[in-house]
Amino acid sequence: MRVVIAPDSFKGSISARDICSAIREGILRIFPDAEIKAIPLADGGEGTMENMVYASNGTLKTTTVKGPIGKEVRASYGILGDGETVVIEMAQASGLPLLTPEERNPYLTTSFGTGQMIKHALDEGYRKFIVGLGGSATNDGGTGMLTALGVKLFDEYGRILPEGGAHLSQLACFDDTALDPRIKESQFMIASDVNNKLCGEKGASAVFGPQKGATPKMVEYLDSALNHLAEIVLKQKGVDIREMPGGGAAGGMGAALMAFLGASIKSGIDVIMKEIHFDNQIKGTDLIITGEGKLDHQTLSGKVIAGVCKIAGKHQVPVVVLCGGVDLEPSKFKDLGVLTALSIVPGPCSLEESISKSAEWITERTESIMKIISYYK
Amino acid sequence: MRVVIAPDSFKGSISARDICSAIREGILRIFPDAEIKAIPLADGGEGTMENMVYASNGTLKTTTVKGPIGKEVRASYGILGDGETVVIEMAQASGLPLLTPEERNPYLTTSFGTGQMIKHALDEGYRKFIVGLGGSATNDGGTGMLTALGVKLFDEYGRILPEGGAHLSQLACFDDTALDPRIKESQFMIASDVNNKLCGEKGASAVFGPQKGATPKMVEYLDSALNHLAEIVLKQKGVDIREMPGGGAAGGMGAALMAFLGASIKSGIDVIMKEIHFDNQIKGTDLIITGEGKLDHQTLSGKVIAGVCKIAGKHQVPVVVLCGGVDLEPSKFKDLGVLTALSIVPGPCSLEESISKSAEWITERTESIMKIISYYK
Repeated sequence: MRVVIAPDSFKGSISARDICSAIREGILRIFPDAEIKAIPLADGGEGTMENMVYASNGTLKTTTVKGPIGKEVRASYGILGDGETVVIEMAQASGLPLLTPEERNPYLTTSFGTGQMIKHALDEGYRKFIVGLGGSATNDGGTGMLTALGVKLFDEYGRILPEGGAHLSQLACFDDTALDPRIKESQFMIASDVNNKLCGEKGASAVFGPQKGATPKMVEYLDSALNHLAEIVLKQKGVDIREMPGGGAAGGMGAALMAFLGASIKSGIDVIMKEIHFDNQIKGTDLIITGEGKLDHQTLSGKVIAGVCKIAGKHQVPVVVLCGGVDLEPSKFKDLGVLTALSIVPGPCSLEESISKSAEWITERTESIMKIISYYK
Repeated sequence: MRVVIAPDSFKGSISARDICSAIREGILRIFPDAEIKAIPLADGGEGTMENMVYASNGTLKTTTVKGPIGKEVRASYGILGDGETVVIEMAQASGLPLLTPEERNPYLTTSFGTGQMIKHALDEGYRKFIVGLGGSATNDGGTGMLTALGVKLFDEYGRILPEGGAHLSQLACFDDTALDPRIKESQFMIASDVNNKLCGEKGASAVFGPQKGATPKMVEYLDSALNHLAEIVLKQKGVDIREMPGGGAAGGMGAALMAFLGASIKSGIDVIMKEIHFDNQIKGTDLIITGEGKLDHQTLSGKVIAGVCKIAGKHQVPVVVLCGGVDLEPSKFKDLGVLTALSIVPGPCSLEESISKSAEWITERTESIMKIISYYK
């Protein structure tokens, strides 16, 4: 019995790596000789970098950068097993988890630290970057990151603009001639499933601003500030960053990476699966067990399970899904490429209980499913 | 694919027959050609009679009897497929569900109607009885039933004792010479897993009195009344009904059936399985799906699932359990003879939601499990 365990985290509950351990335990209780490979996954959001490093046998680099409100933070980026691909997770330097709820303020938060991480990796000689944008605390159009890499932003009096999304409304022009020249030699790939554009009703400020601490009034102001930034960029560079799908990811970080760093953007899970050679990793496998917090209609597009199933389908490996909650009729499993999906819970329970007992219950349900497989196999 | 569906009801949620339908639907979605046999079960409690009639292709007889507080009720008993075995369910004539919560009063409730059902069946020519004692509203030591069959109870002034548990404290003597003579030609088997004795801390009044409406004070009075009944029976018949395991079932009905009708007592599920020839019914079956509201350590002894597993084990047919809640570690499944057990719920939910959606969820989880089996089979 050869099994690959390749789950997403159950968000707010248990990490993908802990899920892997719990599933492994459940498998071994029934198949003590099983060959098990654990590949914790993420869809481009938090955990992406760590999981990719783990799955590719890579390494971590840690450096000190400016956090989202100026305080220094320790931030790590990953070097994949190929020794040349850097994985930057924006949340490490400029993420919401670095702030207390009171500190969240997208008027002021800056992506500067993410730029510093990129610079650190450039200094170390790396030129190939994958950037995950999940969990950012910022709405600064990526200007903090650009500043860290040498771009200068000025107000109408020629003064350097302070960092933070609110000040963009005072932007008069920028100078990107001093942008780190090593950027040109580099390749940037954004791993993200956010298709939102920079501005408007479905723009960065309106959709993601509130979770970063923006009131409705702030959303309005931030949206017009990003719009103003876009006007200046259009004037100076001839590119309308408002038209870029994904430009609104991470408070406009997507737009800055594409317009200034020449980044391309791809579905998070697709990038990840390619980089960790998931295809090779599941060759000869009898079964894949994956999972996520909730299996629903959204899962059908672009999430971890869909990514796993796409590749599993090519190799005709059956996929069993364990999740906190199944909100998809079993008749839809086939469309997704899933053999079956079951909840980890043993009966009626609160969300809190399912969170606190998730590891134990994942093991038990894995064991219960393995019992069926072991009988019929 | 030949499947036998043989669940208990999920008490307070869904009947065994509706569970059978829901499971059948789930099987057919994956195995449209499956040969399915539905055998709804009960452990001697409510539904026992109906299920046995259904499983054995028997018939129902309905008659009008005196209900637990005197009002007439329509009560049915079953004739099994053999055409000679009567199944009496006490709850039909003397059951709690016949009363509003306000009407529950074990001082007054009587088992008279159950005696009338027996008499009706005797009149129809039947002599072989299985009696299920679940759900009784009475605490009258079975004296109502005895009265209906000809026994006379007197107080110290030689007056006929009124019915109901409270009046037993005024019992001076009884006359059972007029007990229906056809009783002697008959055979009575109690199907019950209640081992409680008639009196004391674990007696009928203390353990089952409260759910029948007894306050702590009433429990005390009723217990001493049953004790007094036992003294009189000991004096007149030389039998101490306080010593009989199961004598405390159904407010002392167990004791009366044993002492006056010569009944024997056996585990409910064992009686049922034997009478419906479960053994024969599962011959050549590939899979049994059973279930109950909650799978826990109690299941290991004497409940429906244990009964199903005992016979399934002999024939080496795998048993899959679906239940509202699984409260048993998967490592214990083997002791029980269960291949695997899973909850019907799709994730965290309230008990109320699991009850209102039980049919739908049973179908979905059956379907999800069948998908695994169909892949590996």
